[in-house]
Amino acid sequence: MKTKTMKNLPIRNVKVKDPFWSKFQELVISEMLPYQKAVFEGKNRNNRGGSAIENFRIAAGESKADYYGMVFQDSDLAKWIEAVAYSLSVKPDEKLEKEADEIIELIGRAQEADGYLNTYFQIKEPEHKWQNLLECHELYCSGHMIEAAVAYYEATGKDSLLKTMCKNADLICDRFGKGKERGYPGHQEIELALLRLYRVTKNEKYLNTAKYFLEERGTDPEYFAVEAAKRNWQHFGMNPENREYAQFHAPVKKQDRAVGHCVRAVYMYTAMADLAGETGDKELLLACEKLWENITQKHMYITGGIGSIAAGETFSADYYLPNDTVYAETCASVAMVFFARRMLELRQKGEYADIIEKELYNGVLSGMQIDGKHFFYVNPLEVVPGISGELHGYRHVLPQRQDWYACACCPPNLARLIMSLGRYAWGENEDTVFAHLYLGGKAHFDCAGGVGIKCESEYLRKGFVSFKLSPEKESKFTFAVHIPAWCKNFKIRINGQEETFELKDGYAYVNRNWQKGDTLTLELDLVPRKVYSNVHVRENAGCAALMYGPMVYCFEEKDNGKNLAALSIPEKAQIHALVEEHENIGEVLTLKFDGAKDISGGKLYEDEAPKLESCKLTAIPYHLWGNRGPGEMRVWMRVK
Amino acid sequence: MKTKTMKNLPIRNVKVKDPFWSKFQELVISEMLPYQKAVFEGKNRNNRGGSAIENFRIAAGESKADYYGMVFQDSDLAKWIEAVAYSLSVKPDEKLEKEADEIIELIGRAQEADGYLNTYFQIKEPEHKWQNLLECHELYCSGHMIEAAVAYYEATGKDSLLKTMCKNADLICDRFGKGKERGYPGHQEIELALLRLYRVTKNEKYLNTAKYFLEERGTDPEYFAVEAAKRNWQHFGMNPENREYAQFHAPVKKQDRAVGHCVRAVYMYTAMADLAGETGDKELLLACEKLWENITQKHMYITGGIGSIAAGETFSADYYLPNDTVYAETCASVAMVFFARRMLELRQKGEYADIIEKELYNGVLSGMQIDGKHFFYVNPLEVVPGISGELHGYRHVLPQRQDWYACACCPPNLARLIMSLGRYAWGENEDTVFAHLYLGGKAHFDCAGGVGIKCESEYLRKGFVSFKLSPEKESKFTFAVHIPAWCKNFKIRINGQEETFELKDGYAYVNRNWQKGDTLTLELDLVPRKVYSNVHVRENAGCAALMYGPMVYCFEEKDNGKNLAALSIPEKAQIHALVEEHENIGEVLTLKFDGAKDISGGKLYEDEAPKLESCKLTAIPYHLWGNRGPGEMRVWMRVK
Repeated sequence: MKTKTMKNLPIRNVKVKDPFWSKFQELVISEMLPYQKAVFEGKNRNNRGGSAIENFRIAAGESKADYYGMVFQDSDLAKWIEAVAYSLSVKPDEKLEKEADEIIELIGRAQEADGYLNTYFQIKEPEHKWQNLLECHELYCSGHMIEAAVAYYEATGKDSLLKTMCKNADLICDRFGKGKERGYPGHQEIELALLRLYRVTKNEKYLNTAKYFLEERGTDPEYFAVEAAKRNWQHFGMNPENREYAQFHAPVKKQDRAVGHCVRAVYMYTAMADLAGETGDKELLLACEKLWENITQKHMYITGGIGSIAAGETFSADYYLPNDTVYAETCASVAMVFFARRMLELRQKGEYADIIEKELYNGVLSGMQIDGKHFFYVNPLEVVPGISGELHGYRHVLPQRQDWYACACCPPNLARLIMSLGRYAWGENEDTVFAHLYLGGKAHFDCAGGVGIKCESEYLRKGFVSFKLSPEKESKFTFAVHIPAWCKNFKIRINGQEETFELKDGYAYVNRNWQKGDTLTLELDLVPRKVYSNVHVRENAGCAALMYGPMVYCFEEKDNGKNLAALSIPEKAQIHALVEEHENIGEVLTLKFDGAKDISGGKLYEDEAPKLESCKLTAIPYHLWGNRGPGEMRVWMRVK
Repeated sequence: MKTKTMKNLPIRNVKVKDPFWSKFQELVISEMLPYQKAVFEGKNRNNRGGSAIENFRIAAGESKADYYGMVFQDSDLAKWIEAVAYSLSVKPDEKLEKEADEIIELIGRAQEADGYLNTYFQIKEPEHKWQNLLECHELYCSGHMIEAAVAYYEATGKDSLLKTMCKNADLICDRFGKGKERGYPGHQEIELALLRLYRVTKNEKYLNTAKYFLEERGTDPEYFAVEAAKRNWQHFGMNPENREYAQFHAPVKKQDRAVGHCVRAVYMYTAMADLAGETGDKELLLACEKLWENITQKHMYITGGIGSIAAGETFSADYYLPNDTVYAETCASVAMVFFARRMLELRQKGEYADIIEKELYNGVLSGMQIDGKHFFYVNPLEVVPGISGELHGYRHVLPQRQDWYACACCPPNLARLIMSLGRYAWGENEDTVFAHLYLGGKAHFDCAGGVGIKCESEYLRKGFVSFKLSPEKESKFTFAVHIPAWCKNFKIRINGQEETFELKDGYAYVNRNWQKGDTLTLELDLVPRKVYSNVHVRENAGCAALMYGPMVYCFEEKDNGKNLAALSIPEKAQIHALVEEHENIGEVLTLKFDGAKDISGGKLYEDEAPKLESCKLTAIPYHLWGNRGPGEMRVWMRVK
C-alpha cells in the first residue's frame, strides 16, 4: 500500500565532510549546543529566572524551584537532545553523550507512573491536564520528545528515552481515538512524531493514532469551541472560532490552500505526506501536492521564508510578500525542509530538492549568527534602522540577531536540522541511488548489494561535484543526480567521458554497470543570475534579486552605503562573482558590479527625475547578513 | 507687536462662483449638511442608538434618553454649526438658519449656570469634570463650539451662541492660568478657538488664556502623569508617559519636529502661528517655521496627507511614507489648511498657498464621495482589494468610503472647510491685495479705499484666470497673485498687454495705478507632469506620480484592469490631458498615455525578466477615486 518510492539512509550511514556545511556542523557542536545547554540551565542573561532542565528536576521532585517559561518549554530541550543525537553520529563525544544521558535519565524520573510527561502541567496545573488541547501544547511537547527519543536511539542505540516516550505515546494512544476521547492538538507535531515512532518500533498503534489525529482534524470545526466551553479557564486566550489559524477549518484532505500559523501548518503537511507514504492514501497525497504548490507558488519568499503576517505568524493573501514587515520564521523554513523531504520520498521530483536547498542556504541559515550564539526568529528581506524593530508594524523585525528569545523554538530547531543534514542529502530505492544535495562526504547504500559513494563538492563556488562510487561488486544500477532548477546547462561525465542519461523531473538518471572507483562528475553552469518575481508580487515590481547557484544575495549598508532603496542594477550590468575577505564573515563569494544610485536635490517632491550616479555595488549571501553590525539590508533591488 | 502682515477678508465679503468649487459647495448645502444633521438626530443606520443633538436635550433636562457616543461627541455638532454659518454666508437659507437657531437655543439651555458645557460630563460623570484633561476633550469640545459661535456671529450677526460660549470661555479662563489651576488640553483646539474669540470680542483674557495653554504645555512633561495620579479613574487608558503623542514632551517653542497625533499637532501649530501673529513672538514664529518645514519636507504624502502610522494616528520616522498602510486622516489635511493659512498671514510665501491648494484638491477632497454622503477617514495612496481593509496592518485602510464613523470628526470638518473656502482665497494688507487660490467669484477689499475683484477662473482646466478689478477710485496699489510652484512658465497681462511685475516668494506683485475695469489675466503653463519623490522615500523609488496643475492623479482598476503594480509609465510617454465622461463621476479631466504592463509566465520566481506589453493607461484626479465601485487604486507608478 505504500506510496513511498525512496527511503532515507540511516543517519549513521552518512558522513559529512563538506567545504560549506562541515564548518556549520562544527559550529553547532562547538558553540551552539554548549550555548543552548547553558541557556537550558538558566545561565543566559534573558533566562536567569529559571531553566528548562530545572523544570524536569521540579517535576521529578528533586528541586523546589519555580516552574520557568512557556507552556511548551519542554520542547526546546527535546529539540536540543535530538540535535545532540545527530551530533553524536557526526562526531562522537563522550562528554556530550554523558550530559545528554543524564538529562534523559532525569526526564525518565520526571515522568508520572501512567506515562504522563509535561512539566508545565505536572508542576503548575495538574488538575488541568488534557483539558485544553487548543492552547496548551501537551501533545506538541510529547511529539518533540518522541522525535528526540527516536533520534537518540538511532544515533546511539540507547533506548532509555525511547522507552520513556513509548510509555508516554501509549498513554496518548490509549486516551485519544475513535471510540475513545475525541481530540487533536492545537499545535501539530505529535502526528509526525508518532509516525517516526511507528517506523522505529513497528507498533501500529502509533501509526493509527497519528492517522486518527490527522483524519479527525477539521471534521467538526466546532470541536475546539466545544472543548473551550467545557472548561472554565484559558491559557493564551486563543479564539476557538479562528479555525484557519490552527488548520481545523476543514478535513485535512480537503485543504488546498496554506492558511493560518505557518509552523503548525507545515508540521501538519509533513505528517500528511508521511502518512500518505505509509498508507498509500492517494487523496491525502493529492492534498499534499496542492498545498505544496500553493505554498511554493503563492506564499514563499525567494529565501524560502514563509509567513508574511506577524500577527499570528501566519500565511496571508496570495502573493502578499512584503519584504520589510515579513515574518518568515526560522522554524517555518525548517518545517519546509521536513515537508519537502517527505514529498521527495513519495515522488522524486527536483522541485522538492530545490526547496530543501533554498531553505537550507537561505531561510534556515540566516537564522543563526556566525558565532553560533545569536539567532533570528524573523528573517526579513529588507531592513532599515529606525523603522525595522522600532515602528508600529515593524517591531517584530529585529535588525540584529538576539542571544535568545522567550519563545525559543527556532534556535534548537536550527541545531537539530543542521546536525541531521545527512538525512536530506541522499536516498535510495531497490535499484536507484539518489544524490539530492551534493553534500561532501561519504554515504553507504543498501542498493545493489551495497554501494559506497564518496562525494567531493565544490558545488557552491564552482558548480562542480564529483561522486566516486564503490559498489561491493560490479553491478547495474541507476545513480540519480539532482539537477537544480537554477541551472540551465550542465554536463555529466563518467571517468572523464561525457555520459548519456535520462533527464526526468529534475534528476539525471545514469543507468549502467558500475565498478569500484567509477567517478561521476557533475559540472553545473554557475553564473550570477538576476531573478524576478511574479508580477502579482506588488513589493517586487521592477526589481530583481541576485542569486548564485542556490544562494540568494543581499545588499548591506556596510558595503553599499545608506539608502539602499536609491540603488539600482543596470539592465545590462555585468555581475562578477569573486571570493573576497570581509570583516567578521571571512572569505565570501561576493557579487560585484557597476550599479547606479539615485541622487536628488533634497526636496520631498520634485518634477525632475532623480539623477543617476554610477557606483560600485556589492552583494553578499543573504544568510550572512547582519554579521557586521547594524545597518540597512535588502534583497530585492530595482533594475533600471 | 503683531507679526501678521496680511489679514483675512470677512467671509461675507467673498462670493464664490467657481466652475470647480461651487458644485462642491452646493453638494455640501444640498446633501452633506442635511445628511449630517440627520445623523446627529440619530437617523443614520450606524447611529441608531442615539444622537449628538439628543445629548444636549438630556443635558438641558428635556429628555430622559441615554447619552450617546464618544466623550467628544459635542464637537461634531459644533463643526456642523460652523459649516452652517459659512453656508448661510454663501447662500442664505431661512429653513437651515432656523434649524441652526433652534439647536443653538438648545445648547444655551444645556449650559450650566456657571458656564460649564459638555454633555458627556453633565450627563454621565458630573463628579469628574476637569479631572482628566489628558483624555477627556472638555477643552477640545469647548474650542469647537467657540469656533462655531464666532463663525455664526460673523455670518449672521446673531450672538446667542457667542454669548453662551463667552460664558463658557470665561469659566475656562477663570479656572486655568498662572496663579490659578494648572493645565492644558490632551487634544489641542481650545487655543486656536480662544484666539478666534479674542479677535471677534477683543477681550484680552481669551488671548492670555490661549497663550497660557500654549506656553505651559510641555514645560513640565510630568504634568499629565501627576494629573493621572490624582484621580482613580481613566477614560481611554492613554499613557501619560507617551509625551510626544500629545506634544507635551517639550515646551512648544522648543519643538522642531512633527511628532505624535497629527491632528493634535497641527491644531497646536495653527494656534502657535496665530499667537505669533498676535504677539510678535519671533521665537514662536521660528518654531512654526521649523515645524512647517519638517512636516512638508519629511512627513507629507504628495496628496498633502500626513500621518503614516495608524496606531495613534501619528507622524512617524522621516521619509516613512508607505502608500498602502498610510493613515493620512482627512482631518489632518483640513488642519494643514488651517496651519498654512495662519503662516500665510504672517509671511506671504507661495509655499503656504501651495500647500493649501495641495490639501484642498487632494487630501481634503478625497475625504468625500461625490454623493456628499460617504466619507473617508483614512486616505490611502494605494489600495488592493483583499489586502486593504482586510489584512492585519491594513484594516484601517478602507477601500470604499463609509456612510459614517463612530469617531466622526472628519465629515463635519470637511463640510466646514469647503463652506469657508472664501477665507483662504484672498487676503490684503494696507497697500496690497492678494489672490492665493484663483477662486472664481467676487471679493471686496478695504485696501486703497475699497476694491472689488471679480475672478473668472479656468485655472484647473486651462491654467487661465482673469481678475477684473474695480477700485472705488483710481489708485495706486499692489495686486499680488500667487504663482503656484508647480508652474514653470506663466504670463501676466493687464488689459491684454504683457505686464512687468516683481516675482517674490511665489507671488507676482503688480504695482500700478488701477482703474475700474482693469483686467489682469494669468496664463499658467498647464501640462501633465511626472513628479518624483525624494530618494529617501523607499516606497516611491523608481516611481512617479502624475499631476496636472495642483491635482494629483491616480490609476484605478476600473480604467486600467487588475494588478496596477505591473503597470509602468515609459520614460518618454506623451501624456495627454483630455476631458472625458466617466460613469458616476461625469466629465473629468483625464490623463491618458501609452503605458506598459509586465506580464509573466506564472511561476513565483523566474530568471526571465517579466515581458512588457504595451497598453493604454488612464489616470483620474485622486480626489475622485473610489467613486465607481471597489477596485485597485494607486498613485505612484513605476517609470521605465
